[in-house]
Amino acid sequence: MEIYTTHPRRAELWEKHRTRLEEARTAWHKRTYWYAYPEDQRAYPEAAAAQGEGDFKAQLGRPFDRLRQPARRWLISDEVSPYTREPLGLSYPQTEVSEAIEAAREALAVWRWVPWSERIGLLMESVERFSHRFFEVAHATMHTTGQAWMMAFQASGPHAADRAVEALAVAYEELSHIPEKVRWEKDLGRTRAVVDKYFSPQPEGISLHIGVSTFPVWNVLPGLYASLAVGSPVLIKPHPRAIYPIAVVVAILQELLAEYDLPPTIVQLIVDSVAAPVTRQLAEHPYVRIIDYTGGSEFGAYLESLSGKVTFLEKAGVNSVLIESVEDLGAVAKNLAFSASLYSGQMCTAPQNVYIPKEGVRTATGMLSYAEVAQVLQQAIEELAGHPKAAPAILGALQNDSVAERIHTLEAQVQVRRSAAAYAHPQYPQARTLTPIVAELSGADAPAAHTEHFGPRLLLVPVESARVGLEALYQIAREKGMLSCAIYTADPEFKREAACLLAEAAVPVSFNFQGQVFINQSVAFSDFHGTGGNPAGNASFVDASFIVKRFRWVGVRDCLAG
Amino acid sequence: MEIYTTHPRRAELWEKHRTRLEEARTAWHKRTYWYAYPEDQRAYPEAAAAQGEGDFKAQLGRPFDRLRQPARRWLISDEVSPYTREPLGLSYPQTEVSEAIEAAREALAVWRWVPWSERIGLLMESVERFSHRFFEVAHATMHTTGQAWMMAFQASGPHAADRAVEALAVAYEELSHIPEKVRWEKDLGRTRAVVDKYFSPQPEGISLHIGVSTFPVWNVLPGLYASLAVGSPVLIKPHPRAIYPIAVVVAILQELLAEYDLPPTIVQLIVDSVAAPVTRQLAEHPYVRIIDYTGGSEFGAYLESLSGKVTFLEKAGVNSVLIESVEDLGAVAKNLAFSASLYSGQMCTAPQNVYIPKEGVRTATGMLSYAEVAQVLQQAIEELAGHPKAAPAILGALQNDSVAERIHTLEAQVQVRRSAAAYAHPQYPQARTLTPIVAELSGADAPAAHTEHFGPRLLLVPVESARVGLEALYQIAREKGMLSCAIYTADPEFKREAACLLAEAAVPVSFNFQGQVFINQSVAFSDFHGTGGNPAGNASFVDASFIVKRFRWVGVRDCLAG
Repeated sequence: MEIYTTHPRRAELWEKHRTRLEEARTAWHKRTYWYAYPEDQRAYPEAAAAQGEGDFKAQLGRPFDRLRQPARRWLISDEVSPYTREPLGLSYPQTEVSEAIEAAREALAVWRWVPWSERIGLLMESVERFSHRFFEVAHATMHTTGQAWMMAFQASGPHAADRAVEALAVAYEELSHIPEKVRWEKDLGRTRAVVDKYFSPQPEGISLHIGVSTFPVWNVLPGLYASLAVGSPVLIKPHPRAIYPIAVVVAILQELLAEYDLPPTIVQLIVDSVAAPVTRQLAEHPYVRIIDYTGGSEFGAYLESLSGKVTFLEKAGVNSVLIESVEDLGAVAKNLAFSASLYSGQMCTAPQNVYIPKEGVRTATGMLSYAEVAQVLQQAIEELAGHPKAAPAILGALQNDSVAERIHTLEAQVQVRRSAAAYAHPQYPQARTLTPIVAELSGADAPAAHTEHFGPRLLLVPVESARVGLEALYQIAREKGMLSCAIYTADPEFKREAACLLAEAAVPVSFNFQGQVFINQSVAFSDFHGTGGNPAGNASFVDASFIVKRFRWVGVRDCLAG
Repeated sequence: MEIYTTHPRRAELWEKHRTRLEEARTAWHKRTYWYAYPEDQRAYPEAAAAQGEGDFKAQLGRPFDRLRQPARRWLISDEVSPYTREPLGLSYPQTEVSEAIEAAREALAVWRWVPWSERIGLLMESVERFSHRFFEVAHATMHTTGQAWMMAFQASGPHAADRAVEALAVAYEELSHIPEKVRWEKDLGRTRAVVDKYFSPQPEGISLHIGVSTFPVWNVLPGLYASLAVGSPVLIKPHPRAIYPIAVVVAILQELLAEYDLPPTIVQLIVDSVAAPVTRQLAEHPYVRIIDYTGGSEFGAYLESLSGKVTFLEKAGVNSVLIESVEDLGAVAKNLAFSASLYSGQMCTAPQNVYIPKEGVRTATGMLSYAEVAQVLQQAIEELAGHPKAAPAILGALQNDSVAERIHTLEAQVQVRRSAAAYAHPQYPQARTLTPIVAELSGADAPAAHTEHFGPRLLLVPVESARVGLEALYQIAREKGMLSCAIYTADPEFKREAACLLAEAAVPVSFNFQGQVFINQSVAFSDFHGTGGNPAGNASFVDASFIVKRFRWVGVRDCLAG
């Protein structure tokens, strides 16, 4: 019996990308430095940058007509550039939820029976084609999210593509564990049992991906590629203010699928507006069985409460820093100032609370008092925020007005050492900018320390001692969760104790990050992004669980003799 | 930094069992015939049988004093032999729920930091020691569950041990993917980043295992060993009528843990009575994060509804058979009669509904009418049930009175062709026995076809055609789920279509099972038991998901240069 049918052209894609995929799988195992796509834009063909910019400019103010999915009307999007404050003027085909589900069901019936090797080959090819569009997507990302150019290029380009390849590598690992067919034979004495066994990975059902406005590609690609690899069609519901970047990816996939005789509706873009969202309607649909989501904790809890769904959630946490002892406080302060300022603190991994012992901090040149430590940290923020080149390159712009509102609300609750204030962007005078607030809390119990204040902020939290600070970190980890956590210590015993304690709370600690190594960054093929085990989220990019929860092995036995 | 500390004696256990474990992992990948423990009792030392019987007899009527866990009182158990109808007279130390949880928390703090290789080495050793107790456990199983001797030996002995080794092999596979420590280096141009990375698998929390009265060992060992392998302590709450068999396993583990300087309370036996159950109290406890369960669908749904738990559930389904065409109907009928009679239909994989086309069934010697097919099936049941040696060896006894009550209730709803009736057991005149009812339903829509009637039964369901029967199977699969499904067909096209359709419903189909190959059996290292994707359960013995959902990778980064 042949359960799967081979498609020669798709099988060629598998052969084309197989070696690369095996390298990626090996990298995932080894976890040393490796990448599939270079993060340096100079590594790409010289013409690509101009081409990408041209494509971006040509797309502005026009319908996005690259998609291949049924739609009866066009939606003019809510996308507005945080730099120019002008609407991008794009419109997208708006597929009805019921039509999208129906198309996805039909796509599921086909896609689940494409051999996984052919699926993964085709998906590797799609990432390769996406790499030719990194520059256009970078511009689209910059002008929807407010990210500065460099981050927009790296996060929505090579770093996202690497996470996609990583998801495919882990899917390859897991899917290749079990053979497609095997003959099982057992001597029964007088007779011999012969049973042909077939194993097929079957997806849970249709996937929904709910995008976020700040990282419209990076946070989508792991789940998108994980679901597609296991045979689940994906409905992508981007944030209404950040559609363009991921629409490019969907268009590439749809074109490729059609080229290889498959329904382009294996991936669909479902657009909505801020005024008329469709996310709940999609999430609650009984045929939607897998949900990937990045965003606020409240909506995340709602998604988790839906019965019959497998969810992969990245929610909010309260990322924290503890300074026990340092070699060079100036260097540490610079590093932390960068981490807190990067993309105006709109990263899920940006630090918020900095716990500092009241008794002061030991350094290579002697003890520094609490006040001195606070002053050095504040000074580092001042310098970065006031630097005419660094500020725009690092801070970028705020995605939307509510970020600034939140930070201003915070100002009313804390003792402000440095007010959040706009900086003047040299190229974009209209840019929505805000440099970090630096504030001081009364102590670890202060309510402001127990809430995420998403945006540019650094909250200094005095604690009796480093040990009390460690306990406070553990409590916050259990209560609110963290996506990142930094501890500075020169004491090996304290380090080991902190690593173990926080590992028990499923929080990944970064010790003594300095220079150009920042806690915001998690690197594909080496770092897991999130652990999935603390309140900040229930998933991790990309562990085995991120793949295997999406499908089930189904065995078929055919008895030839018994 | 050393996060893990090696314990030389435990590390020796890993070295001792490593080769065997690698063989098991390879077998799990290859899925051809392989076992860790032979199922033939003659393969065990000659003295073992007598020793096991002696141990069993010596234990009857006495306190089970082999456990090492805190308890203030002894509970006289509800265990009654289905063969003699006499209470076994065992009592067990009864640990309070709160004390058990506290001991498990303390055990968790230790066990999670034992390197996984040492954990798995020790667990392999425990299975090996358990194999020396197969005979005692077989007697204990027979006289708690009502299984016949051969099944009691195989299911609670070698087959259960093999599933335990399988769980350890898959844990080994998944845990060994990620290194414990790696140095990550990246050229940053003017500087070089050097980061030491540590990866530690952290269990979700404490595990609870809720046992079933019919398979008190076989259904427990996979989840027990999966949780222990990833560092989660386990509270085993056996069914109050089937404690003794698994108590032996717990005692072996506790003794071994103590011998290797570990808290014996890493595994605890929590006993209760039918009158005063503690299962809900355990399941709802916030520190209990992982729940394994075998049993009714209603309680399963309750467990699934608890928030913050990872559940592995095997619930009820409606196992179905479809006869499209056969070579030799007599042989098929014999095979099905065995499957329906084995352990009086008290297996989760026993067939219930047999769909037969009204237009008849094609055989190698011509068409047989519906009535003829029904007659041959009934005849095969009659012969088995009336056979003085086969009946006791195959049917065994009913675990409890409600099984017979359920079958008698069924009789009132259906057209009975053959009544369920007791058979006389040659050794145990008091045995609670019942041979299968054979009944006929009005059609696929009959309510009785849409409910599981756990016990000895075969329900014949006339359908318009084989194709209509296939559609009925698919509907039942979606609506109620199945743990097993058999289709008889000589038509390759029909076979392929049925395999694919039912795979989409996550139901594993067995085609043309005959001779000594029975659909009830799923073989470790080759067959997945359950798929986890249909309403009969959300877990599978033993796929990767059965392991990885129990833990999270936590990364620790230590920046040496940046």
